Amino acid sequence: MKKFINDPKQFVPEMLKGIALANPDTLRYVSEYNLIHRADAPRADKVTIIQGSGSGHEPAHVMTVGPGMLDGACPGDVFAAPPLDYVYETTKLLASPKGVLLLVNNYTGDRMAFDMAQEMAVADGITVKTLFIDDDVSVQDSTYTIGRRGVAGNFFVMKAVGAAAEAGADLDEVIRIGEKVNSVTRTMGIALTACTPPAKGSPLFELGDDEIEIGVGIHGEPGRRRAKWMPADEIVDELLGAILPDLPYQEGDRVALMINGLGGTPISELYLLYGIAHERLADRGITVGRSYVGEYCTSLDMAGASLTLVKLDDEIESLLAAPAEVAVRVF
Amino acid sequence: MKKFINDPKQFVPEMLKGIALANPDTLRYVSEYNLIHRADAPRADKVTIIQGSGSGHEPAHVMTVGPGMLDGACPGDVFAAPPLDYVYETTKLLASPKGVLLLVNNYTGDRMAFDMAQEMAVADGITVKTLFIDDDVSVQDSTYTIGRRGVAGNFFVMKAVGAAAEAGADLDEVIRIGEKVNSVTRTMGIALTACTPPAKGSPLFELGDDEIEIGVGIHGEPGRRRAKWMPADEIVDELLGAILPDLPYQEGDRVALMINGLGGTPISELYLLYGIAHERLADRGITVGRSYVGEYCTSLDMAGASLTLVKLDDEIESLLAAPAEVAVRVF
Repeated sequence: MKKFINDPKQFVPEMLKGIALANPDTLRYVSEYNLIHRADAPRADKVTIIQGSGSGHEPAHVMTVGPGMLDGACPGDVFAAPPLDYVYETTKLLASPKGVLLLVNNYTGDRMAFDMAQEMAVADGITVKTLFIDDDVSVQDSTYTIGRRGVAGNFFVMKAVGAAAEAGADLDEVIRIGEKVNSVTRTMGIALTACTPPAKGSPLFELGDDEIEIGVGIHGEPGRRRAKWMPADEIVDELLGAILPDLPYQEGDRVALMINGLGGTPISELYLLYGIAHERLADRGITVGRSYVGEYCTSLDMAGASLTLVKLDDEIESLLAAPAEVAVRVF
Repeated sequence: MKKFINDPKQFVPEMLKGIALANPDTLRYVSEYNLIHRADAPRADKVTIIQGSGSGHEPAHVMTVGPGMLDGACPGDVFAAPPLDYVYETTKLLASPKGVLLLVNNYTGDRMAFDMAQEMAVADGITVKTLFIDDDVSVQDSTYTIGRRGVAGNFFVMKAVGAAAEAGADLDEVIRIGEKVNSVTRTMGIALTACTPPAKGSPLFELGDDEIEIGVGIHGEPGRRRAKWMPADEIVDELLGAILPDLPYQEGDRVALMINGLGGTPISELYLLYGIAHERLADRGITVGRSYVGEYCTSLDMAGASLTLVKLDDEIESLLAAPAEVAVRVF
């Protein structure tokens, strides 16, 4: 294993320290709970938005904390749900009188931790609700979950509820918006290589030199099938062939299109995929209203990509267009 | 070779088409010259800033076109200088009465193409000057160049001259600023793996499972030495040990610190490196005034990173802080 790392056990805390040092004016790091939060959170005038998940999916979620997005993120170790008490303590620390929304990608371990933490926080008199995200069309049940998995489409839920909360919406309204965005968002991913968790030190699964995994999960979980490598045009057709009929997305629809890198794929290839997908959608009479190309939800160093569609209406489009600012930035 | 690609010969044009489709309101793509330019360029009220280079370094430079940055970028094929006539035609198309500044990373092939294109454009009556960037401290001469190489520190030159041009500075003033920023910028990189050019289909050089290349070039050129893998703390010490004495950067200095990913390294590892570098600088009494973590100048799918320091003064810091907007974005 060749990574930029010291002790694998310190991988997550050392990354979190780096995030905090790079954003001294805007973010705070509470090492006891792996917590990264906005320097100005909690705020009495807005619903608090928190997401936790395993680490290894950066920028999700520790680098998507900031105005218009998350108030805080409490990750677990690599590919491990955050411990129950981290979620509970984070919820207490960031609780607002307007309430707390916990965002959770649908994995069994995460659901358990967040469900129990919510119960404990409610017993303390905090208003807390939870919203589960399950945008991955690849498989129904999977290695780590019952039901569909939550993957890169999670970004759009975070963005929309973040914008609504910033505008002063109450907790029920924020939840309505989050559920609505989740309900029109669909994703599927493809792995070209496996990923290597620091503590394991070797690839999580084996993929031949000419093989790809279609519908891969962000923890390396199996997808729909293993196939021989195919050209980018055919890969986009595979992804759209699974995603389009699922909602369905139809002629006349306006969508957000995201090509998300899984960690080891250069942005040049992501834009190449984007161009193909954009044209394939245009051929079907589907207009791309907003485009997203880059890394949003990764799987450590996995070479691969996912494609997400969100069906837009005026409400969703204006929430996605609202200003936001997070640690992941160019300038 | 497993990449998201169709025909390797179409890799660059297909990527460029994707960039244009993702940014229909702000960018234009002229396929005859691999040219990506701002939709509003040329503008009579500002110096035109153009950079070309080989492809494979994205986001540099085709994704760093926009207000406050480049007016246009004309890349060559992967790791190949743009053809002379592409540079010449781009210069003519984007020429402003206030003049044109051509930015060139210091590689012999790029220098030749840009020098000749400048001569031809000047013969046409266009005011054109060229600025060479050479921030890489690793080696004096290298596989593809005489003198030091231009690498990720190039971003700071683009950003500063882009801000100055946007504010209405004349060509001589823009050049003064670019030369000043280049003169206080130093970079060194480390490769954990080689990269695979699409047309070659196999890694550009061999690196053992436990080996790293210290001082690697962004085309896989050899650096200072090959070493056994070492922990992130030691890697940062290697990089700072080469960079700090070179200017030198000293106690009391205020700097911009960039950790740049080379294409295949996840952002989690880049933030881990950032945290270490930030603390090492603090230990020496050097303050980080601005931080940059992500991909700025890559080498296809190479796993690796580079560290850049820029010595700040009020003028440079305010140019770096000026607003800018490019295709690479989160929202």
